Amino acid sequence: MGNADSDEYPPMESVADGGGHRVAIPPPRPFFESLRCSLKETFFPDDPLRQFKGQPPSRRLVLGLQYVLPILEWGPRYSLGFLRADLVSGVTIASLAIPQGISYAKLANLPPILGLYSSFVPPLVYAMMGSSRDLAVGTVAVASLLTASMLGKEVKASENPTLYLHLAFTATFVAGVFQASLGLLRLGFLVDFLSHATIVGFMAGAATVVCLQQLKGILGLTRFTHETDVISVMRSVFSQTHEWRWESAVLGCCFLFFLLLTRYLSKRRPKFFWISAMAPLMTVILGSLLVYLTHAEKHGVPVIGPLKKGLNPPSSTDLAFGSPYLSTAVKTGIVTGVIALAEGIAVGRSFAMFKNYHIDGNKEMIAFGMMNIAGSCTSCYLTTGPFSRSAVNFNAGCKTAVSNIVMAIAIMFTLMFLTPLFHYTPLVVLSSIIIAAMLGLIDYETAIHLWVVDKFDFVVCMAAYVGVVFGSVEIGLVIAVAISLLRVLLFVARPRTFVLGRIPNCNAYRNIEQYPIAKNVPGILILEINAPIYFANAGYLRERISRWIDEEEDRLKASGEANLQYVILDMGAVGGIDTSGISMLEEIKKTVERRDLKLALANPGGDVMKKLSKSKFVENLGQEWFFLTVEQAVGACNFMLHKCKADTKRDGSDEKWNNV
Amino acid sequence: MGNADSDEYPPMESVADGGGHRVAIPPPRPFFESLRCSLKETFFPDDPLRQFKGQPPSRRLVLGLQYVLPILEWGPRYSLGFLRADLVSGVTIASLAIPQGISYAKLANLPPILGLYSSFVPPLVYAMMGSSRDLAVGTVAVASLLTASMLGKEVKASENPTLYLHLAFTATFVAGVFQASLGLLRLGFLVDFLSHATIVGFMAGAATVVCLQQLKGILGLTRFTHETDVISVMRSVFSQTHEWRWESAVLGCCFLFFLLLTRYLSKRRPKFFWISAMAPLMTVILGSLLVYLTHAEKHGVPVIGPLKKGLNPPSSTDLAFGSPYLSTAVKTGIVTGVIALAEGIAVGRSFAMFKNYHIDGNKEMIAFGMMNIAGSCTSCYLTTGPFSRSAVNFNAGCKTAVSNIVMAIAIMFTLMFLTPLFHYTPLVVLSSIIIAAMLGLIDYETAIHLWVVDKFDFVVCMAAYVGVVFGSVEIGLVIAVAISLLRVLLFVARPRTFVLGRIPNCNAYRNIEQYPIAKNVPGILILEINAPIYFANAGYLRERISRWIDEEEDRLKASGEANLQYVILDMGAVGGIDTSGISMLEEIKKTVERRDLKLALANPGGDVMKKLSKSKFVENLGQEWFFLTVEQAVGACNFMLHKCKADTKRDGSDEKWNNV
Repeated sequence: MGNADSDEYPPMESVADGGGHRVAIPPPRPFFESLRCSLKETFFPDDPLRQFKGQPPSRRLVLGLQYVLPILEWGPRYSLGFLRADLVSGVTIASLAIPQGISYAKLANLPPILGLYSSFVPPLVYAMMGSSRDLAVGTVAVASLLTASMLGKEVKASENPTLYLHLAFTATFVAGVFQASLGLLRLGFLVDFLSHATIVGFMAGAATVVCLQQLKGILGLTRFTHETDVISVMRSVFSQTHEWRWESAVLGCCFLFFLLLTRYLSKRRPKFFWISAMAPLMTVILGSLLVYLTHAEKHGVPVIGPLKKGLNPPSSTDLAFGSPYLSTAVKTGIVTGVIALAEGIAVGRSFAMFKNYHIDGNKEMIAFGMMNIAGSCTSCYLTTGPFSRSAVNFNAGCKTAVSNIVMAIAIMFTLMFLTPLFHYTPLVVLSSIIIAAMLGLIDYETAIHLWVVDKFDFVVCMAAYVGVVFGSVEIGLVIAVAISLLRVLLFVARPRTFVLGRIPNCNAYRNIEQYPIAKNVPGILILEINAPIYFANAGYLRERISRWIDEEEDRLKASGEANLQYVILDMGAVGGIDTSGISMLEEIKKTVERRDLKLALANPGGDVMKKLSKSKFVENLGQEWFFLTVEQAVGACNFMLHKCKADTKRDGSDEKWNNV
Repeated sequence: MGNADSDEYPPMESVADGGGHRVAIPPPRPFFESLRCSLKETFFPDDPLRQFKGQPPSRRLVLGLQYVLPILEWGPRYSLGFLRADLVSGVTIASLAIPQGISYAKLANLPPILGLYSSFVPPLVYAMMGSSRDLAVGTVAVASLLTASMLGKEVKASENPTLYLHLAFTATFVAGVFQASLGLLRLGFLVDFLSHATIVGFMAGAATVVCLQQLKGILGLTRFTHETDVISVMRSVFSQTHEWRWESAVLGCCFLFFLLLTRYLSKRRPKFFWISAMAPLMTVILGSLLVYLTHAEKHGVPVIGPLKKGLNPPSSTDLAFGSPYLSTAVKTGIVTGVIALAEGIAVGRSFAMFKNYHIDGNKEMIAFGMMNIAGSCTSCYLTTGPFSRSAVNFNAGCKTAVSNIVMAIAIMFTLMFLTPLFHYTPLVVLSSIIIAAMLGLIDYETAIHLWVVDKFDFVVCMAAYVGVVFGSVEIGLVIAVAISLLRVLLFVARPRTFVLGRIPNCNAYRNIEQYPIAKNVPGILILEINAPIYFANAGYLRERISRWIDEEEDRLKASGEANLQYVILDMGAVGGIDTSGISMLEEIKKTVERRDLKLALANPGGDVMKKLSKSKFVENLGQEWFFLTVEQAVGACNFMLHKCKADTKRDGSDEKWNNV
């Protein structure tokens, strides 16, 4: 059915104001050309090859090597002043890395020495390949806990420590391969799906869970649940009140108090950052001395025990690819790999923003991946860029990734000469260190900010927290991501539609709810659709637009104003349309015409216009009913409104539309 | 950091043109008020209670009853003219319902009589509760096949027919409850997530699979695979070529040719619709006569055999809630229920659109649900509104749902008196009827249309088709829905950004790619963001916007034009923002200021403005950098550009921004 009125109306060109511009339909592009463009926008939004353009081959080789190993880029510019700063920060983070490494390895149910191994090889790899200047590499509590809970479901570390260890290496290898391939496949944007709110809730939940796990160490319990949820832990703790050891608890609380006090001091005076950075090592030394002098290890205070002297033994032959538990290791590797990646990239990005330099997410993923692959072959488990250590590094004034190399060398010395010193370190000290670190991860201020600014983000954050604390780490994560995605889907499934009115003394048409001064145009209903028109919302929009028309007609009838004659859809914010959307527009056109109204579209975008033209909707509605701006559409409608006012032709057309 | 320049610049009000309108921040609404509004928009977009407003209680009761039972609304207006039309169409669809019902019941591996039972009770229920005037109720091929394949995995109909039958009733009951609760919970919009493209591909795939299954009947095979994918079926067919029966094949092909010929004739001359509607019954009568006269049933032509006389026996005690296979029945019920719902609602909506009346999706779901619950208690299996039968109903000129009542009465007579006549009906006739019906569902024309208009929809369609044909019905559906959702997510994850230019002789700023006549404004980069700013795209937008700025600066440097001074973001199409999006804007502001540029926002919507103000971004950027239109923003920037051209103050501010 063509536009039956077109021969009766004057050509619209004479009606439109001044310029008389028409809505442009972009010229058709070859299929593969447009496919190439959209793939490029999806996977290479940062256009990483731009710098290679127009360079001679030798220069391209240098740029390529610098792209893979950023150290080649900043290395030649390295100066003595930088070295001094990096030495200080490197030693500072090493003093934090030793106790944290041992603590987190215990948390992962792995031999404590692995925590030290993991602070030796991976930082060296990262220093070559990473693009962050502030990230300090090491193990993290959440990934350690996840390793323990996911692997522990299949293999108990206490029953079969060798298999458990090999599975942990395998999981690390898988995590590394997964991280590197995400980077190589340019899928870094998947990490963006962990929104800020999700991470805040998730981290706080994981911190809570990790703190609860430390009740075992603080209370000196020997039996403890393997579950991580708060209910199981509380039941486990309170079912054995008679086994609580007060010596252990007192020691633990004292050290915790000391650690929190130093943190408080450092926060008040940022230049004393080293107090809080050194504090964990201090407590380890103090605790070990205390045990050594009082022989408390013989009175039921558990200690770390003997640590093997020497550097990382190779472990590439330990990767358990033939094991029947391979699928568990793969699952653990993927989940911990994603979590570690999200934390590392978020931390790197935050500090880069502070110092105004740029971090390439995909490149970082490759660096994290390579460092974990290398780690899994040298007796390390999963490492990333922990927030606490990186913050200390930043505060200590690091200049480049050389601080990671300094830390690795310091750990190397420790491994070669100092490991016997940790024999008498009581486990309760490690629990205090973990709790102190975890309390800093519960970011209740951000949660309040989320509540104030965006209730939905707050719900996502709380869902992640509650899911982690009452369910498990994976459940919390899945719930939070699902709710976040639901929000995106809901945005598309239930788009906003607004009635627009004219802002006086101005050519703009704006939402009359937001701008109460905006005035309705008599006889014309202007609607703005604020989302792409896709299958998911086509049904809703059809309902909603007819309801807007109903309501407007009711309102006009009630106030005795002129009848509605035109419906203008402002398509400026419609970013895309699919075939369901086009059918919806066709239905709207029929509905509107059945009510004896006329439909006009204002400002459809290039893509939308292309599809409307291909599907013959442009022909069907009539090219003259597409306008560049709402203003021009209103102008044209008004012109016709005045022209047709006295006509009675509407009576005739009534029938015409009803027998479609 | 405040806006450091604000004390040096003149107040912006004097710069903005004429009206001097500011961007409005909507007044804060109480939390529960806004929650109520958004819940209403999500679940009650059609505002179903509107008609009840301001009515006396008695009228409300009548309206409420009419809402639940639409027959009370149109019944009193029913006339003799309508009855005549409904009689004709009711008898026509009954003649189609008998052979189709028997065929589809065979397809579902259920006793053939169930197909007749299912055309008796459910149509009566639908006639009371349904809001479509054209829908003819009955069983459908796809849901029948799904029932056979999903239940058949657990319980073989040939080995334990009673259990299989009871599970089929249970699945129907579950489907009914599920459909009704979707309607009651106002979750009808979930069906919208099956896009048009998905349904086209899925239906064609299911039709192909159903046709392949008929090779069993056509070739007269006795053994046949239980899988539905094309590879298993082909292997099954060609592994027993020696068992093909030519008598059966010749008979089947003749009947198929006859059926397709009548369809072709009816399509050419729509007024002969009854030829194609009556054809299936004709083939059944012809085939039965042929077998009866030649006693072919004794020479290896399988026939239906004895059918029980009498109306539907009650089956509510057969619902197998205690069965160990309950979960299979529940899964089957939910999947078939959704598929049946999608088909029924799509069919109802299409015909309603033809005749210009309105269908309420949620109400329809309740009607479908109630009809299946009633059906499951009266020996019926899953029914919906099949396209073929409804199209015949529509062509036969039905006026109201009374045609369903007429059909039910005709089936009732058949059940009571005529079932012995079907004893000699050969199964090969049923196979021909199914194939003829299925070929009509392969809508290759729409697939071509999808390819022309929207390549992505075509991919979705083909994915559904290939998934169904090579995998299984569920796999095809899951793949298609996943790809459709991926498209929505990709739209949000990779939003379009455009550079805007000024259209000459017009106050509009438009995408310079779409409108090559649009001109860049010297010294100002205007970018339009065409999607909500959410966590999923915040990272991408940050990268993309800095790349736009890089490219613009490169271009200006190459052409020797004036330096870039201002970046204006047109937020008109930004429908929403979350906390990740706000952080992104803050980062963009820092990036822009680090390059010694200034950021301005044009036309942010009410919701966005509210959140920006709550998170102090408005304060941070300076209220005077928010503009109602791009035009005003350009005006203000130009004013300052001319004022500041001679100043050297920029040199000083360079340092100021770098040590943030």
